[in-house]
Amino acid sequence: MKIKILTLFKEMFIPFLETSIIKRAILNRLVEVEVIDLRQYSFDKHHHVDDTPYGGGKGMVIKVDIVKEAIDSNISSKTKVLLTSPRGKTYDQKKAIELSNEEEILIICGHYEGFDERVLNYVDEEISIGDYVLTGGELAAMVIADSIIRLQKNVLSEGSYEDDSFQTGLLEYPQFTRPYDFLGNKVPDVLVNGNHEEIRKYRLYESLKITYLRRPDLLLNYKFNDEEKKMLERIKKETLQNN
Amino acid sequence: MKIKILTLFKEMFIPFLETSIIKRAILNRLVEVEVIDLRQYSFDKHHHVDDTPYGGGKGMVIKVDIVKEAIDSNISSKTKVLLTSPRGKTYDQKKAIELSNEEEILIICGHYEGFDERVLNYVDEEISIGDYVLTGGELAAMVIADSIIRLQKNVLSEGSYEDDSFQTGLLEYPQFTRPYDFLGNKVPDVLVNGNHEEIRKYRLYESLKITYLRRPDLLLNYKFNDEEKKMLERIKKETLQNN
Repeated sequence: MKIKILTLFKEMFIPFLETSIIKRAILNRLVEVEVIDLRQYSFDKHHHVDDTPYGGGKGMVIKVDIVKEAIDSNISSKTKVLLTSPRGKTYDQKKAIELSNEEEILIICGHYEGFDERVLNYVDEEISIGDYVLTGGELAAMVIADSIIRLQKNVLSEGSYEDDSFQTGLLEYPQFTRPYDFLGNKVPDVLVNGNHEEIRKYRLYESLKITYLRRPDLLLNYKFNDEEKKMLERIKKETLQNN
Repeated sequence: MKIKILTLFKEMFIPFLETSIIKRAILNRLVEVEVIDLRQYSFDKHHHVDDTPYGGGKGMVIKVDIVKEAIDSNISSKTKVLLTSPRGKTYDQKKAIELSNEEEILIICGHYEGFDERVLNYVDEEISIGDYVLTGGELAAMVIADSIIRLQKNVLSEGSYEDDSFQTGLLEYPQFTRPYDFLGNKVPDVLVNGNHEEIRKYRLYESLKITYLRRPDLLLNYKFNDEEKKMLERIKKETLQNN
């Protein structure tokens, strides 16, 4: 898969691409990433890319002619073109999985004061990473790229994202490591006893419980099996008793 | 305000802190940011910070003793301690505004396989930037820091975030800049005519409309004034007619 990123702040991406898991994925050619400077598509010698908004108002608006030129120069028929924008559809793990199966995507980094609305004629999808405002779309583009790259085949070792929050539809169960006793706070017995079936049940129960308590909305579309149905009943009873 | 960030990948933050609006905010002392390497709080000469999980499973878990040491060494009574985690409460602009009023926050960057659960005893709040999984919490920490820094007094010029998506409770209206006619696609007349009251109405109407069409959930808690109520009725009628 190839990920192209169109931005005014190319240098912001350097350490993201040179750190840890993402770095290894690129070195091992499991994904290709190209960061492209929007400014090189400017038509004037001062490399302007924005202009004042029609109708007045603060800030500058990125020009549609320059963005179209940049898009045209960097896509083929198989490229999916995305624009990061607070007005986009909210990004989630389902969308990450969907995009991770594309052959090529081009992410246009949103810009503080926004783009000329006519840019949308050349974009397949507007994506928002959440209901908050950022100074630019570079962090949003990195979030999207990161979530997609880690889903590429062989980037993580087999089985390592199966228990992830959101991947299963549930939040993740609690993890513990040494020391066993930290200031009187001990690791749960079941994790120390070595009974794999008991450990599996404990983790499933805790996943269901934390999801029920914190993000009941995630359970609305969750496909429960019989074991999980029974566990959820138990969790509901225990929660009522504790209140 | 001071923002401290505890991470294993300190270098990832360098260009974020040295670019554009964030850089200026730091240079102008409108905010102070300190990035702290968790590894310096390790107890062994190999600087290990993680260990295998109790109960088995893939990956390594960050140790509670080291994190507590790092927290204790970097907070005062006024510091709010945050942990980025997919299990946290979903971050939004309301939370950004709330955190932007704190005197000092410490953001602990979540780690791929997670933290020893007992770390939560020393954390005020778990925060998730969205329903997707990242390779680490560094991007999440930058998103939180960015959204908070731009809200600090004098970071943006006065009035420039008042029309932001989410800040008003509505998504932002469309923007246009030169050229007036791009491949036959023209700027709306109202924005060219220079009637400020008409422009104000057009923008409010478009904000309401895009929010109604794309994110009706945002309108559930929106406080409509009379003008907006009437506009929304018109939008609803027009939407019905167009379907």
